[in-house]
Amino acid sequence: MTKILILGGGGMIGQKLARRIVDHDIFPAADVTLFDRAFPPAGVPAKTVVGDISDPATARMLAAERPDVVFHLAAVVSGQAETEFELGWNVNMMAIWHLLSALRSEHLASGSSYRPRLVFTSSIAVFGGPYPDKIGDDFLSAPQTSYGAQKAACEMMVGDFSRKGFIDGLSLRLPTICVRPGKANAAASSFFSGIIREPLNGVEAVLPVADTVRNVHASPRAAARFLTHAAKLDTDLLEGRRALNLPGFSCTVAEQIEALRRVAGQDVVDLVKHVPDPAIMAIVNTWPQDFAPDRALSLGFEAESSFDEIIRVYIEDDLTG
Amino acid sequence: MTKILILGGGGMIGQKLARRIVDHDIFPAADVTLFDRAFPPAGVPAKTVVGDISDPATARMLAAERPDVVFHLAAVVSGQAETEFELGWNVNMMAIWHLLSALRSEHLASGSSYRPRLVFTSSIAVFGGPYPDKIGDDFLSAPQTSYGAQKAACEMMVGDFSRKGFIDGLSLRLPTICVRPGKANAAASSFFSGIIREPLNGVEAVLPVADTVRNVHASPRAAARFLTHAAKLDTDLLEGRRALNLPGFSCTVAEQIEALRRVAGQDVVDLVKHVPDPAIMAIVNTWPQDFAPDRALSLGFEAESSFDEIIRVYIEDDLTG
Repeated sequence: MTKILILGGGGMIGQKLARRIVDHDIFPAADVTLFDRAFPPAGVPAKTVVGDISDPATARMLAAERPDVVFHLAAVVSGQAETEFELGWNVNMMAIWHLLSALRSEHLASGSSYRPRLVFTSSIAVFGGPYPDKIGDDFLSAPQTSYGAQKAACEMMVGDFSRKGFIDGLSLRLPTICVRPGKANAAASSFFSGIIREPLNGVEAVLPVADTVRNVHASPRAAARFLTHAAKLDTDLLEGRRALNLPGFSCTVAEQIEALRRVAGQDVVDLVKHVPDPAIMAIVNTWPQDFAPDRALSLGFEAESSFDEIIRVYIEDDLTG
Repeated sequence: MTKILILGGGGMIGQKLARRIVDHDIFPAADVTLFDRAFPPAGVPAKTVVGDISDPATARMLAAERPDVVFHLAAVVSGQAETEFELGWNVNMMAIWHLLSALRSEHLASGSSYRPRLVFTSSIAVFGGPYPDKIGDDFLSAPQTSYGAQKAACEMMVGDFSRKGFIDGLSLRLPTICVRPGKANAAASSFFSGIIREPLNGVEAVLPVADTVRNVHASPRAAARFLTHAAKLDTDLLEGRRALNLPGFSCTVAEQIEALRRVAGQDVVDLVKHVPDPAIMAIVNTWPQDFAPDRALSLGFEAESSFDEIIRVYIEDDLTG
């Protein structure tokens, strides 16, 4: 039996990951527990635990079950971490500290035999400009948001607890996940999904930035695959650098829209309306545009190789009716 | 009046910094308070407070005085942070969190008028190999010690609290400080000072590594100057990247010894005995050897430009009798 704990298991990626683990034979006799503040009504069938990840007692309770693999996806999103400073640091950093400390206690109590795999979802928000044309694997973390600073601080903890042998962890810096199913949210990045998802559902979508804006994308399916790949990776291959820039497909908004035209036709594309929003433009302009994620590629992490493919994944996995 | 608080004010660099501030007219009407666990018997004349920096109540008490400038030099040294894991994270990371939180509370209570300058001493221990020949200003932090991971995590906090305007902080990644006065300590780097200091005092010194080992050095005098320079720097010039690689003089141990010969003669050099220590060699081989600290140089940070000069600084400032 492989005991698997997914923190943030009620969220979009947590559910995609749980579905992938339940439906595929990735982990032998997978025993999956999902932890979150709340769960969607018709979620993936698995044990669920509702609680507050920032409570040290919660971390101890979860660690006491000695999961073999912990996926940590629980986070206050970037916009909220920016407006609610203390909440952001408490949930996005202190909660990881409590979790790592609790896992270390179990490791010590086990006579060092218990050493869980921890897959921590970091973000390309650890980066801040100015950028090179392609961000290489040895580019500095100079975050320009609280969310990015919190993720970068956690990477340091995950790395050090792993180096000391208390856990066997790694941090995955996810690109923009697109096309997100469901409703638009308040994130500045929401439109990258919205301009594809809304038209495919017959609804108008607003494009708030110029179509020359470039970003790096991977599908929710690719994100779930990144996570399970990381859970089974030989971490000796990381040679002590346990944070990875993951691959994605870099393209401009114009190229996204061209792909939508190829996949779904001009009528669908006509539902995208350009309504410039200087506030969103200002935020998006600070984001990385392209990477050269050589390490992750050599370690077998795979994303889509065209935006057409990213749209088709959405149609196959999430478009209903 | 400029209220100045030096955390770790009882240590070697804290004392050098306090002496520099007391003796020179760097801050108008400087009112200096030194905080540490203990103080040397004939230390720099200034107010002293004895306490435990990792106690949140201590942080609140110190912040309540609303110092204009806070120098944070208090730390568990690298060897101890490696063997006493919890102590290291508590003192080297959590204490900074408590201090920053307490300073933020004062900022908020003041109606945002209180925004202290914080100069945090980080370290080149934030880096881990493999290295380029010269480490540039945009090279990643991939620490291979708990001490380095703790310092890197703190840099993220100092950066984010500053970006949000609660404090006005920066982190200085100090090179090896050499020649340290006083007795040898248990640090693996201790010999870099020992092979100069002991012979100049007529005592034999052990060189535990090959003389081809290269390292980056700056004097204690330069360290104190870095700190006061940082305290007065226009932080707008940092453009949001608030951690700086500082300059130093890069040379091999053989070049250190040649400089000692030029400054003090062959009889003094004859007191250096080569007794290889594979354990120390293994640690030292993981350290960075050279930097291209373009940003710090352009911001006016200055180190010595020869090892002869570093030796002369020791003779002038610390050699007695």
